[in-house]
Amino acid sequence: MINIAVLGYGTVGSGVVEIISGNRDNIKKRTGGKEISVKYVLDKKDFPGNPIQDKVVHDYDVILNDPEVKIVVEVMGGVEPAYTYVKQALLKGKSVVTSNKELVAAHGPELLAISKENKLNFLFEASVGGGIPIIRPLNQSLTADEIEEISGILNGTTNYVLSKMTKEGSSFHTVLKEAQDLGYAERDPSADVDGHDACRKIAILSSLAFGMHVDFKDIYTEGIANISDIDIKYAKEIGGHIKLLATSEKIGDQVLAMVAPMIVKPDNPLYSVNDVFNAIFVRGRYIGDVMFYGSGAGKLPTASSVVSDVVDAAKHIGTNIMTIWSSKKLDLCDVKRAKHQFLVRVATDDEEETKKQVTGLFGVVRQVRAGIDGEFAFITNDIEEGEFKEKSRQLGGVINRIRIKA
Amino acid sequence: MINIAVLGYGTVGSGVVEIISGNRDNIKKRTGGKEISVKYVLDKKDFPGNPIQDKVVHDYDVILNDPEVKIVVEVMGGVEPAYTYVKQALLKGKSVVTSNKELVAAHGPELLAISKENKLNFLFEASVGGGIPIIRPLNQSLTADEIEEISGILNGTTNYVLSKMTKEGSSFHTVLKEAQDLGYAERDPSADVDGHDACRKIAILSSLAFGMHVDFKDIYTEGIANISDIDIKYAKEIGGHIKLLATSEKIGDQVLAMVAPMIVKPDNPLYSVNDVFNAIFVRGRYIGDVMFYGSGAGKLPTASSVVSDVVDAAKHIGTNIMTIWSSKKLDLCDVKRAKHQFLVRVATDDEEETKKQVTGLFGVVRQVRAGIDGEFAFITNDIEEGEFKEKSRQLGGVINRIRIKA
Repeated sequence: MINIAVLGYGTVGSGVVEIISGNRDNIKKRTGGKEISVKYVLDKKDFPGNPIQDKVVHDYDVILNDPEVKIVVEVMGGVEPAYTYVKQALLKGKSVVTSNKELVAAHGPELLAISKENKLNFLFEASVGGGIPIIRPLNQSLTADEIEEISGILNGTTNYVLSKMTKEGSSFHTVLKEAQDLGYAERDPSADVDGHDACRKIAILSSLAFGMHVDFKDIYTEGIANISDIDIKYAKEIGGHIKLLATSEKIGDQVLAMVAPMIVKPDNPLYSVNDVFNAIFVRGRYIGDVMFYGSGAGKLPTASSVVSDVVDAAKHIGTNIMTIWSSKKLDLCDVKRAKHQFLVRVATDDEEETKKQVTGLFGVVRQVRAGIDGEFAFITNDIEEGEFKEKSRQLGGVINRIRIKA
Repeated sequence: MINIAVLGYGTVGSGVVEIISGNRDNIKKRTGGKEISVKYVLDKKDFPGNPIQDKVVHDYDVILNDPEVKIVVEVMGGVEPAYTYVKQALLKGKSVVTSNKELVAAHGPELLAISKENKLNFLFEASVGGGIPIIRPLNQSLTADEIEEISGILNGTTNYVLSKMTKEGSSFHTVLKEAQDLGYAERDPSADVDGHDACRKIAILSSLAFGMHVDFKDIYTEGIANISDIDIKYAKEIGGHIKLLATSEKIGDQVLAMVAPMIVKPDNPLYSVNDVFNAIFVRGRYIGDVMFYGSGAGKLPTASSVVSDVVDAAKHIGTNIMTIWSSKKLDLCDVKRAKHQFLVRVATDDEEETKKQVTGLFGVVRQVRAGIDGEFAFITNDIEEGEFKEKSRQLGGVINRIRIKA
């Protein structure tokens, strides 16, 4: 019997308790005969009438000081007090499983180092991609390979909004409102819409893929609030879908990471990933292209990932499962050096004149028509971000520009 | 330093040697500092001038009797002598990594039991899905869940042929010939085309997903040789693609497994898996739908999977990585009980009369038109295979019938 404590009885926490009790036999088989039992649930609230009511504690010290608790499941979210609690648990000899991307992105290397030193485990499969197994495959399956790129659709809310805009031609604000009413988007949607959520997740994936610490604060991040129904129309015109991509790729010795809406073409497997689904695309030197697809959020998918980590922690009491993520910081490539094609929309009242100016600045480009009056749209050749920015400034009148995923 | 021996210096074997020497530093980091070194290559041939020439042996006993060899990599293919060699290696205390689906499907439970008893490992990630990590996720990531369905496009050759027929409208024989010329299909393509390859792979996946032994000989298997360009036309007409699917799903307490060409609709993520790519779709009670996508074959992707198993075996010398696949046989559901919708094409010279007969037998059905003279095509309601077969016999004149994936 292995006793665990669950910190936070919200959506994910209650899902964890539900799966552990509902799938007892299967889990026992998977741990090699050890039963997993929830001894405590830490929450500010009480839950009278709920089967866990007798397990609720309000004082974390009860958990910390109980030597019977071998694994702490942190599903509160946010950096504090999660960070303090997790660190204390590890220092007390308890393994930790978390679904908390803010915590992992901010303090991953330190918590991994402490767990290694103390022959414990700090596992975080559910912090990226909800139910999709991606952290363990990166750690244990793609080990023979050298990863060249890892890109993903890592935020379900924005993917839902963009998919719906693409399908129905509706505006960003109409669809966001709908998503909020359906509970797919928060009342304050900025963490999703502005790309901060995807940014933390790609920081975690890049750190694991390249073995050094990628600080999420260094990643260029652009959200989807500026994407209009007209942008989507143009994207369709060139056979693409606009997706909020979080990408990270090796350019020589450096890594280029960014989060931005990009036009994805049908030959990329991320093209068909719609609605609230997430997917992570990995390109390895030997393995070629691999993609992992599934529910990126949701109570039970996320809780299922958490419980699979609990099973792994239970199987590895006393042994650290190696994770290569050193605290040495990875120097990211300056985003100005990133090369893309851009789809550019420019306001004009004289198409011929604008075309002349565009050609003068960008060379011969491909014009795109989507039946919109008063603007001239075109696709640049491959151009560095820095150079593009300067030339756009010279051109003037740019309504929007969207990167095209190579 | 961990010494290994590679049995078979063919496509995969040479890929394994290439990755181990080309990615030495990365692999050393992943094993926690242990270097992997190829001490022997067993092959009938010599390879003069090849860097491995001094490692080639023709007598397996040299490998078996060398206590320095800790891991044997079997990439010869076929059941014998692979089975004898692998069993001998395990009994001599050596872990085994294999890419050999015939071997794993035929003798998996026995070899797993021997390896468990002797605190060794028998790993076979590359036996299904080439470079796609699927065996380890099934074993270690989806452990908190109860798998309800596992289905896949598990054979690259047939997927290439069907994709090409769909894209170009060409006939089966034209495309197969092209695939043979390009090296995507064997001169004797029957193992692929008749579904035997996919059958062994779904037997392995089902055994791992449901924890009991699924005998590949019990799985109803139908290939793609009867799929014509006209079938593809009808499938398109109803918005689907024909794919050779290997599926296995829980129906009550039983498991229904089959390999057959099926019409897949766009809401299924397998719909967009084209060309030589493979994908495995998993539906879990908690996790929902997950899909793993990548190169299902090819020298380096497959070899990369093999080497990731070698790394895992090297990290776990002296400890067995638990795999739940008991030798107890899983009773498969009688395929007659399987329920599908079918697309049916019937020869006719009197459409109205045929329609009347069809309605009399199958009830009101949906007629499908694809501009083909002399036939009447329709989609049945959900119907059991057994009942369908009997009614089709009564109807007579059936040109082809294709299952529609629910």
